[in-house]
Amino acid sequence: MLSTMQDDVPLTISRILRHGMTVHGDARITTWTGESEPHRTTFRATGERAAQLAHALRDELGVRPDDRVATLMWNNSQHVTAYFAIPSMGAVLHTLNLRLPADQLVFIVNHAADRVILVNGTLLPLLAPLLPRLETVEHLVVVGPGDTSVLEGCAPQVHDYEQLLAGRPTSFDWPELDERSAAAMCYTSGTTGDPKGVVYSHRSVYLHSMQVNMAESMGLTTADTTLPVVPMFHVNAWGLPHAVFMTGVGMLLPDRFLQPAPLAEMIAAERPTHAAAVPVIWQGLLDELAATPRDISSLKTVTIGGSACPPSVMRAFEELHGVRVCHAWGMTETSPLGSLAHPPGGLTPEEEWPYRVTQGRFPAGVEARLAAPDGSFAPWDGASPGELEVRGPWIAAAYFGGVGEPPLRPEDKFSPDGWLRTGDVGVISPDGYLTLTDRAKDVIKSGGEWISSVELENALMAHEAVAEASVVAVTDEKWGERPLACVVLKEDREPVSYEELRTFLGKTVARWQLPERWVTLESVPKTSVGKFDKKVLRRQYAAGELDVTELG
Amino acid sequence: MLSTMQDDVPLTISRILRHGMTVHGDARITTWTGESEPHRTTFRATGERAAQLAHALRDELGVRPDDRVATLMWNNSQHVTAYFAIPSMGAVLHTLNLRLPADQLVFIVNHAADRVILVNGTLLPLLAPLLPRLETVEHLVVVGPGDTSVLEGCAPQVHDYEQLLAGRPTSFDWPELDERSAAAMCYTSGTTGDPKGVVYSHRSVYLHSMQVNMAESMGLTTADTTLPVVPMFHVNAWGLPHAVFMTGVGMLLPDRFLQPAPLAEMIAAERPTHAAAVPVIWQGLLDELAATPRDISSLKTVTIGGSACPPSVMRAFEELHGVRVCHAWGMTETSPLGSLAHPPGGLTPEEEWPYRVTQGRFPAGVEARLAAPDGSFAPWDGASPGELEVRGPWIAAAYFGGVGEPPLRPEDKFSPDGWLRTGDVGVISPDGYLTLTDRAKDVIKSGGEWISSVELENALMAHEAVAEASVVAVTDEKWGERPLACVVLKEDREPVSYEELRTFLGKTVARWQLPERWVTLESVPKTSVGKFDKKVLRRQYAAGELDVTELG
Repeated sequence: MLSTMQDDVPLTISRILRHGMTVHGDARITTWTGESEPHRTTFRATGERAAQLAHALRDELGVRPDDRVATLMWNNSQHVTAYFAIPSMGAVLHTLNLRLPADQLVFIVNHAADRVILVNGTLLPLLAPLLPRLETVEHLVVVGPGDTSVLEGCAPQVHDYEQLLAGRPTSFDWPELDERSAAAMCYTSGTTGDPKGVVYSHRSVYLHSMQVNMAESMGLTTADTTLPVVPMFHVNAWGLPHAVFMTGVGMLLPDRFLQPAPLAEMIAAERPTHAAAVPVIWQGLLDELAATPRDISSLKTVTIGGSACPPSVMRAFEELHGVRVCHAWGMTETSPLGSLAHPPGGLTPEEEWPYRVTQGRFPAGVEARLAAPDGSFAPWDGASPGELEVRGPWIAAAYFGGVGEPPLRPEDKFSPDGWLRTGDVGVISPDGYLTLTDRAKDVIKSGGEWISSVELENALMAHEAVAEASVVAVTDEKWGERPLACVVLKEDREPVSYEELRTFLGKTVARWQLPERWVTLESVPKTSVGKFDKKVLRRQYAAGELDVTELG
Repeated sequence: MLSTMQDDVPLTISRILRHGMTVHGDARITTWTGESEPHRTTFRATGERAAQLAHALRDELGVRPDDRVATLMWNNSQHVTAYFAIPSMGAVLHTLNLRLPADQLVFIVNHAADRVILVNGTLLPLLAPLLPRLETVEHLVVVGPGDTSVLEGCAPQVHDYEQLLAGRPTSFDWPELDERSAAAMCYTSGTTGDPKGVVYSHRSVYLHSMQVNMAESMGLTTADTTLPVVPMFHVNAWGLPHAVFMTGVGMLLPDRFLQPAPLAEMIAAERPTHAAAVPVIWQGLLDELAATPRDISSLKTVTIGGSACPPSVMRAFEELHGVRVCHAWGMTETSPLGSLAHPPGGLTPEEEWPYRVTQGRFPAGVEARLAAPDGSFAPWDGASPGELEVRGPWIAAAYFGGVGEPPLRPEDKFSPDGWLRTGDVGVISPDGYLTLTDRAKDVIKSGGEWISSVELENALMAHEAVAEASVVAVTDEKWGERPLACVVLKEDREPVSYEELRTFLGKTVARWQLPERWVTLESVPKTSVGKFDKKVLRRQYAAGELDVTELG
């Protein structure tokens, strides 16, 4: 039996836009310019510009439904305009990550078959050298000032954003789209293989935005102004541009001014109440404020995600600046909001900390299970580990296979029954708090049980003679895999034997998890972003290049 | 181009249930019993009971997908169990309004073709006399203590709830339903004609619940406990039972103890932070607290809806008890959340009042327009009136036509392009605040313009000689309709002429709106709930029973 409700009203981005323009038309978008005055506009004016942009893209550039229109832009009001115009007209917004290596950017643009790129003038030096290798781009739209001489002789047609929009109608008859149709896409660059594209639907974006607005999530109101430091090319800026149009929250956008000093300055001047960024930004801001104090008292809460935030940073913000930090977990494949670390109600501040340093609880709409090493699903007992698998309307079911190609469902990323395998290993407490401990690929699978390399590394580094430690899985005939402990010893300490280190580990680690194989290194090989590069260690071990000692 | 997201994950009530049982399993549901101890349970235990109830309904009572299972129950944990069990198993929850006249209840049960009724034992005296007239009910399930002797010899089979559930499995393999399928139904009893049924979908309930949880809506968190005084037979208790399972908010349920004294007592004892009810309840509670002070300091906010709340009541709660009142508007056809009166950010408390006494702003998901008297749509200028029409995923598109019959779309209730005609007339300000002034049927349509009967009535009652005033539309050859002013004069005042009253009106009302036809009454006829009964006045006028004076 069918309901009598308006179940045919699709959840589309044009509905979010129309709502923001009408009910919250005066809500403000402020973009930092690095000059005396920031750029100021409203939701209503932004919606009118979105209509003009859609007219220009359709009538002047020939953009048709499903065409990919890319952006290579900072966080600014023109990027917000593109966020709404492109999906609302039925095209697909493809946000390009300007921090990727050139080869990956070229791959991504060609793979998505982008027809148009909107590019900030300040980013032309980055884009220009890539242009000869872009196979599908017909038009460049240059947004804001920049040196366009670098584009001379390039194949795509070059347009000035302001000239392109000027005089066009400020309203657009947005088509009524299927809510499951493509709205936006974002590529994730794994450590191996080519970048993989996730294609968000209007439905997934709409539901994710509602979730961002729920009180147990970011929960902002018209009294708030948010500062999304997280780039808009990074997973929909965590859903904030769409979420604020739903509730009339003000936005302060940093454009390219992501260094600690201008961030401190814009917070002091424009007084946002909320901000969102990765941990490294917050560490930098703390240092900046210690060196040059500024008034950031407007800031009440910040949402931190992207990687685990050091508790010391969370405490420092709270104690020094009265800012409450909320930890969140997510990934490109989860839109990204997967969990948030709000503590349960009724606790003292000190009682809250053990909850706040976890990855948090899943919101309604994110179903979770832990795939245990033995093929079962681990209980939520806070102790049994498993690889986190998630399911829900804003979780990826596949990757973009390329134009006209079927979607990709690599089996290490998607279970046969449709759940996303996150690649993260952890435990879930009986009250639903997720604690991630390892990447699945770094876990040692020993005799049907898992050994956490992170736990062994932390335990080793707690020894006073150890400067660095990295533990990787190596093949073992009997157990399948066993841990190889790689240590860097401090130069100014007494030498320590492997036996002593193993005894030390035995105080905190179960006996069957203790490594037999040990090696001493000058330093642990690192990736370009400073993480331990375990691939290198595994390769060196396999090639017999390491001086391994086996304990009895 | 389709997205790569899990767009096939349906928005179903079983997902809300599973989320509440796992992530928020320890969240509490407390039911007032009027005895020394309330009844206490958790979300997890309630979910296990829901599984048992579903097994019983399916295996013992033969309930099949789409069968209607009715409840005639107060707000208690067993009602919450039914809220989740019945839709999750694929049947349709039909909440019966125990305040309706017997004839309407009989009509509704027969029209919906309910096969089963879950009834609180305390309500058997109400139900028993109706049983001989119920044509489709095969089973009665008696929940909680009550005198079952009144059921002797009745046609339906009688079951005891606890015996029916005992020993059944505490988990159920909930089917993966189409999100557009029927989940629940509720009848609205208009002033004319038979009651009309609205059938909610899983999708509409799910989206409405997300909206209730948004910070700009009720926005509750795990730190909250809500007291839904609004009956669970009344439009899904404003979405609260579903919403709390999404976010782990505690619930305090009043069962049948809806009088001011027990309400004050349960607030003092169980310390809820939020409550939801119609204005008359709050007025009663104010009086009770004035007579017998109690500590209601736990209460931070209350959501008031169902009818406009007197500003004096809102102010009294805030000033005497520190409780912030939020005005909301909705109807059975809108699930019911249609608008909420949160003021814009950044205002002083006094500046907030003009916003807070409106019907509020539309949340994302409720699109609104004002159908003006001339057939156009009125601008949002705070001055141009129109009949409010709404569209969105939790708004009705039709009424239930009966089993196997097509849905009903009366043209005075649904526009040809699918919008719900609310029957409410008002204005919308440029910043999206709705102010309702009249029911559409009470507006006087004069020469292509509307005259507000409420505005004329208020203006008349401001005259010191007028005790009561009611203004109704009467047919006029030239203008279509014109206002008829009916006044009741105060006995202890100097007599006043119609000319004087018209001159008095002219100070605040436009000249073309001034009534020509006047009549003096002993008293204004009233409905059973104390509202002016304009139907009677119109009928008396048409029959020539009123002593009308026409001014030149």
